[in-house]
Amino acid sequence: MLFFTQCFGAVLDLIHLRFQHYKAKRVFSAAGQLVCVVNPTHSLKYAPTRCAVAQTSTEQGDLPPCHHHEAVHDPQLVPCTCPLFSCPWEGHLEVVVSHLRQTHRINILQGAEIVFLATDMHLPAPTDWIIMHSCLGHQFLLVLRKQEKYKGHPQFFATMMLIGTQTQADNFTYRLELNRNQRRLKWEATPRSVLECVDSVISDGDCLVLNTSLAQLFADNGSLAIGIAITTSKVHNSEAEI
Amino acid sequence: MLFFTQCFGAVLDLIHLRFQHYKAKRVFSAAGQLVCVVNPTHSLKYAPTRCAVAQTSTEQGDLPPCHHHEAVHDPQLVPCTCPLFSCPWEGHLEVVVSHLRQTHRINILQGAEIVFLATDMHLPAPTDWIIMHSCLGHQFLLVLRKQEKYKGHPQFFATMMLIGTQTQADNFTYRLELNRNQRRLKWEATPRSVLECVDSVISDGDCLVLNTSLAQLFADNGSLAIGIAITTSKVHNSEAEI
Repeated sequence: MLFFTQCFGAVLDLIHLRFQHYKAKRVFSAAGQLVCVVNPTHSLKYAPTRCAVAQTSTEQGDLPPCHHHEAVHDPQLVPCTCPLFSCPWEGHLEVVVSHLRQTHRINILQGAEIVFLATDMHLPAPTDWIIMHSCLGHQFLLVLRKQEKYKGHPQFFATMMLIGTQTQADNFTYRLELNRNQRRLKWEATPRSVLECVDSVISDGDCLVLNTSLAQLFADNGSLAIGIAITTSKVHNSEAEI
Repeated sequence: MLFFTQCFGAVLDLIHLRFQHYKAKRVFSAAGQLVCVVNPTHSLKYAPTRCAVAQTSTEQGDLPPCHHHEAVHDPQLVPCTCPLFSCPWEGHLEVVVSHLRQTHRINILQGAEIVFLATDMHLPAPTDWIIMHSCLGHQFLLVLRKQEKYKGHPQFFATMMLIGTQTQADNFTYRLELNRNQRRLKWEATPRSVLECVDSVISDGDCLVLNTSLAQLFADNGSLAIGIAITTSKVHNSEAEI
């Protein structure tokens, strides 16, 4: 009897390990779409962002301005574009992707359409969820941020930025889509360049904005699935205007 | 010379009158779609809403509750569903439309797809823009509300309600779409029944929500154009889930 009990326990352990293995996989495919599980990272609330540092330094004449739109054929050193960390790194635009992957361990996904699955939505603001998306020969940075723009009322802000210049970004349209409980919310826009600060995009409100109550309606078991698609602007323009 | 000056003045007057005439038209057609110009109406900020009145009275056992979902074959007297006024009217669900048209002068538009053009977006909260939409054999009430959910930070809330029961409303999907400046925002959901309070829909945040900054990005000369489409739920369900 003891033998059978032990066997049963071993089988349960195996099932549990198998479950853990699947849970640990960061990327999996569901219904033909690539799903990327993205864990949250707390923002350094009181640390100055790269933008603020760059802007302050610019005022003192030390560093180039944060908001600049130089063409890629005239490369300059740009500060680290990762919105999470006040990272002292500076480098050419072409090596931003490898810096983000290697130093900040931000995943990069291939595919025309992916699903960004942000976990632990309940965590207090400020919190960020970040992923890179490689598509149409370019890399994009998706940032979902939980932030208290109005004290005591956290909101979710989602935007997509091109790791390139604004001139390059103007050739694309990104779409973020939430779909659950017979509700659907779609946001389409031209991506901003990572040469701009994600902070300014969010403070301008020029992104997908969700109140906590609406985010809860779209969330499943504390996770928010955001469908991402990127197209060239020509496709966007050919679609009907309302 | 004086004659020519007077002639020129008369022509200018005629052009001005013609412009005024077009401006005064409440409904016109643009690009094959029916466009309805909707002027704002200030909410009675400090007056109790019908819902609040009904709920308070219910607690005292005088009136039926505000949130009820009776079938239409069992008609009951319902309070006036116009969210603007604390109107003392009560009547059967079937005569709500005529009451809203005659007493509150809310326009009703026919057509599968219409454009709701809300004027004077800059007016301070609370402000409402309301229209009725007749489609697929039913009447719907579209409410756009500017409200300060967070003190000092007005937001825009848009929702569509069926002038019917929730069982009837479950057969439909409504879509609200904003499209301007290379940005597009779409909200799709099942309409709520007017037997529910619009106040509760807005406080739940279960509607299209726009921050003022985002509303300004979509606004044109102080007006916000919202494309409206209603379909049966079967169409919605057949569309791809993300």
